[in-house]
Amino acid sequence: MSEAHAPAHPAPTGPATAQVSPGDRTPPTAADECETLGLVAYGQLAAFTQLAGDSRHAEDFDTCLQLAHLASAALAGQGAVLDRVTALGGDAAAQLESFVGSFDNFVDRTAPSTWWEGLLKGYVGFGVAHDFLRVLAERLDGPSREAVDAALASFAPDALAAEQLAAAAAADEVLGSRLALWGRRLVGEALGFVNDLLSARPALGRVLVCEPVPTTADPAEAARPPMTTARLFSLLTAEHSRRMGRIGLTA
Amino acid sequence: MSEAHAPAHPAPTGPATAQVSPGDRTPPTAADECETLGLVAYGQLAAFTQLAGDSRHAEDFDTCLQLAHLASAALAGQGAVLDRVTALGGDAAAQLESFVGSFDNFVDRTAPSTWWEGLLKGYVGFGVAHDFLRVLAERLDGPSREAVDAALASFAPDALAAEQLAAAAAADEVLGSRLALWGRRLVGEALGFVNDLLSARPALGRVLVCEPVPTTADPAEAARPPMTTARLFSLLTAEHSRRMGRIGLTA
Repeated sequence: MSEAHAPAHPAPTGPATAQVSPGDRTPPTAADECETLGLVAYGQLAAFTQLAGDSRHAEDFDTCLQLAHLASAALAGQGAVLDRVTALGGDAAAQLESFVGSFDNFVDRTAPSTWWEGLLKGYVGFGVAHDFLRVLAERLDGPSREAVDAALASFAPDALAAEQLAAAAAADEVLGSRLALWGRRLVGEALGFVNDLLSARPALGRVLVCEPVPTTADPAEAARPPMTTARLFSLLTAEHSRRMGRIGLTA
Repeated sequence: MSEAHAPAHPAPTGPATAQVSPGDRTPPTAADECETLGLVAYGQLAAFTQLAGDSRHAEDFDTCLQLAHLASAALAGQGAVLDRVTALGGDAAAQLESFVGSFDNFVDRTAPSTWWEGLLKGYVGFGVAHDFLRVLAERLDGPSREAVDAALASFAPDALAAEQLAAAAAADEVLGSRLALWGRRLVGEALGFVNDLLSARPALGRVLVCEPVPTTADPAEAARPPMTTARLFSLLTAEHSRRMGRIGLTA
């Protein structure tokens, strides 16, 4: 997306931590749910744009083709997410457009200087985004959750990047060290981005602290403590460490 | 796609007209069929790349989103086309990659200088490509034809561009005249591109002159004269004129 689209909600750049009060056990309002769905749909478009650009600059034809298909897959199910906004009484197009520009700060602050840095950026960035959106989705009502789950499932770029990154890091120790360092920088920026988003969008914070809708009779799930910003960041960090471990890098 | 992918079959730049002998009533060989399918699949990737780039530079958010979805749709069914190459004993990846760079000459010679020129380039270029591929597809065997038809059907950017171009040309007479002129330039380059492709790829010419596989009991179809290069170009030109007429411009 062009820089020409002015951000409707510029992300805050200050160091303030988003304040979210836990324990709100009521389900999210339709408006809060719509805003969450708008974020998911916009994330799909941002992923498409990123992956399509990566495809154009891929070093070999096979990667170019795979990235093009990943880009296409990123948009699959976006229609269902936006339809759900409409069904909840929201303005789908306006909701989507309200997020324009809100990812720019993260994108600009993590400009990769090599192909490998770019690949790791996608791996880490999409990973954190997936985990965050999944936590939010668990708190939406049934049809919304299904629409988000389908959208997230159709788009998992991990497979491609993980394999290539693991092989590259294993073959070149210096590259591996550099990428481990870059990964720490990336996750810091990604968590900062999530924090900025929660600050700029109180609706997302309200969804976050809602009790998750139980999908199983698992007593462990029922016993989970309510979500807080701190607990969210610890969850995102733990998932990131596991993800880095899968490609042989220290988080 | 990056310029870094060297063309395996550089298109000829000379003025020679492709020589195709009509009247070969035998069905295409599997190898010729594979090459045709490779062209279709590569055209899908080229369309994806073009539309994704246009999406990034769209003037408004709605167009950006629509172009992103058109880009994604352009790749739909590519897997089925490539699977068909494999089923016919071909090397799908190699077949696809063999076309890398073969569209560059057309793309470079028709660099648009405005948004409207770019939109018309897509409208004219994709239109001619669709018509050409459909003529080839009619001469493939059943499963191949179905795979190509599905790929072409999932990707029809005309609707978006036609509406916008017609409105713009109607509202601004000077723009309309300029676009009509640009359209003539574009179709000339597109037909030259088809001619270059037929020269560089004898397999495509052999498919072209095969008797079409009848899909209906229509006696008019059975009575059609065999295809020649001249007849192909007259058909492509006539379709182009109709297409320009639909947006209110003289071809």
